[in-house]
Amino acid sequence: MKYIGIDLGGTGIKVGVVDEDGTILLKLSAPTGVERGHEAVIHDMAQLTLQAIEQSGVPMEEIDSIGIGIPGIYDIQRNIVPFCTNLFWHEVPLVQLMQKEIDKPVYVGNDASVAGLGETFAGSIRGVKDSVFVTLGTGVGGGVVLDGKLFTGHYGVGTEIGHMIIVAGGEMCTCGNTGCWERYASATALIRMGVEAMRSHPDCLIAKEAEGDESKVTGKLVIDCVRQGDKIAARAFDQYVYYLCVGLTTLVNAYDPEVIVLGGGIAGAGQILLDAVNEKLPGMIFCKKMPYAKIVLATLGNDAGIIGAALLGRAQ
Amino acid sequence: MKYIGIDLGGTGIKVGVVDEDGTILLKLSAPTGVERGHEAVIHDMAQLTLQAIEQSGVPMEEIDSIGIGIPGIYDIQRNIVPFCTNLFWHEVPLVQLMQKEIDKPVYVGNDASVAGLGETFAGSIRGVKDSVFVTLGTGVGGGVVLDGKLFTGHYGVGTEIGHMIIVAGGEMCTCGNTGCWERYASATALIRMGVEAMRSHPDCLIAKEAEGDESKVTGKLVIDCVRQGDKIAARAFDQYVYYLCVGLTTLVNAYDPEVIVLGGGIAGAGQILLDAVNEKLPGMIFCKKMPYAKIVLATLGNDAGIIGAALLGRAQ
Repeated sequence: MKYIGIDLGGTGIKVGVVDEDGTILLKLSAPTGVERGHEAVIHDMAQLTLQAIEQSGVPMEEIDSIGIGIPGIYDIQRNIVPFCTNLFWHEVPLVQLMQKEIDKPVYVGNDASVAGLGETFAGSIRGVKDSVFVTLGTGVGGGVVLDGKLFTGHYGVGTEIGHMIIVAGGEMCTCGNTGCWERYASATALIRMGVEAMRSHPDCLIAKEAEGDESKVTGKLVIDCVRQGDKIAARAFDQYVYYLCVGLTTLVNAYDPEVIVLGGGIAGAGQILLDAVNEKLPGMIFCKKMPYAKIVLATLGNDAGIIGAALLGRAQ
Repeated sequence: MKYIGIDLGGTGIKVGVVDEDGTILLKLSAPTGVERGHEAVIHDMAQLTLQAIEQSGVPMEEIDSIGIGIPGIYDIQRNIVPFCTNLFWHEVPLVQLMQKEIDKPVYVGNDASVAGLGETFAGSIRGVKDSVFVTLGTGVGGGVVLDGKLFTGHYGVGTEIGHMIIVAGGEMCTCGNTGCWERYASATALIRMGVEAMRSHPDCLIAKEAEGDESKVTGKLVIDCVRQGDKIAARAFDQYVYYLCVGLTTLVNAYDPEVIVLGGGIAGAGQILLDAVNEKLPGMIFCKKMPYAKIVLATLGNDAGIIGAALLGRAQ
């Protein structure tokens, strides 16, 4: 059988025809055009899916199911998208509307969560049963796979691991709380730490590389400065890695997974990030005499969303 | 069938013969005598079990299995108790030694975790499939039940929820980290907050009730002062409830359980605690438009450990 994986984002729709091993046979994309309302978006998504199937040459009867990763939450009790900020959606019966145009089973999951499922089936941790996937991007998202299945929590809200509170009373978060992990471990957080370093040390390499312009500071720029041996950048990165490890410690102590996969923009730093985490984390976890989750980097990149969504059907 | 539940603590061994509904038919106890070494303790535990079975009148062939809750971690990969601080145990093959004396299947779990399993089967949340049990005692422990089964994590370390970090850089914890939840939500924490209140307001009701003696401040004393309308005590309690809710928020955002059960000494405060949590928590959780875990109080009290341990066998 083959599976359709759809990565639905605020700017683009990506559709892939995926085989049982998680290989993408064909991929199409189109702009989302959120301003047109959910019916137009879902119609385009269905049309793009039919096109992808046709172009792939896979007969319709060989398509098992359609999986969709959305940038929000799916209410599994009511079978509805209750709200989706990036898409301006409110109470959208996504599954029913898709099935009106294509008569196949449709599964929906959170985009970061399905990306984690993708890594489990086809990426760096193929075959691992219990994993936590952490995306270190603009925010921090995550997906938990337990016994090979996507863990969605009881109400479908789990697993918003970016909103674990790690510094009660700390940085304000968009969710209304203070001190959420994503305020300290996202790319946004590393940029903030880089800018703070630049302000207090106007002669540091970060300031030089950014030409004194705070808006030019990116996570990659800070990490490049670390690679070049700049001590001020190294201190900012060390602070970032500490907070990253605080959240990883909570994940190890509370979920005790076999593997934790780091993905998203910051994971692009590669070995330098992995080395820093593996130096700091062992001293922080609760049971220092017991084995604990291996930390690895994601390998599927932007395709994880399509592959993971496709595998929502396979994992049922 | 009937089940043996053993609650093994640093001071006492409690053995119960439990039926399929989680009712204790007969209960025996003996001092642990940890200083005698693990072999003597396990031998006593086996003898107490045989006595309990005999006194209960249940024929041996009707005993399905033996479950043991230990104040530590069980290494499910190596089938061994790697260490147990309160018992001074190190690399103890508990299951094998018990089975040398009684030829029945033996299951082992963390004491707080099995207490959570007990509440799920026989206590306040009978029949609930996805729950988190939180003990608010000297420390903070917990148990997670997913789909009716005790969740132990991949290596058997999960779920040390008392060591989720909620205030990175905050209070020192015995585990070596700073800011673990148990430093802010245990009875010990409420006592600390009460003592601090007493120091800064020597005329408050806490000081009066404790007769100016800091060592007389207990969690119950602080809560009694709150009940009597003392504003300084109310402020200390409010601070405690805030930190309790910080950890509960992380549990809701990361585990998304159906129900969270509060047990342990502080839960003895009852409705006043529940009301305070239910006032603060809804504004803190991530998805304010979605249903989230109902917060309830544990009802089994000290028997939860025996009942939950007994049900380890039933839940397999």
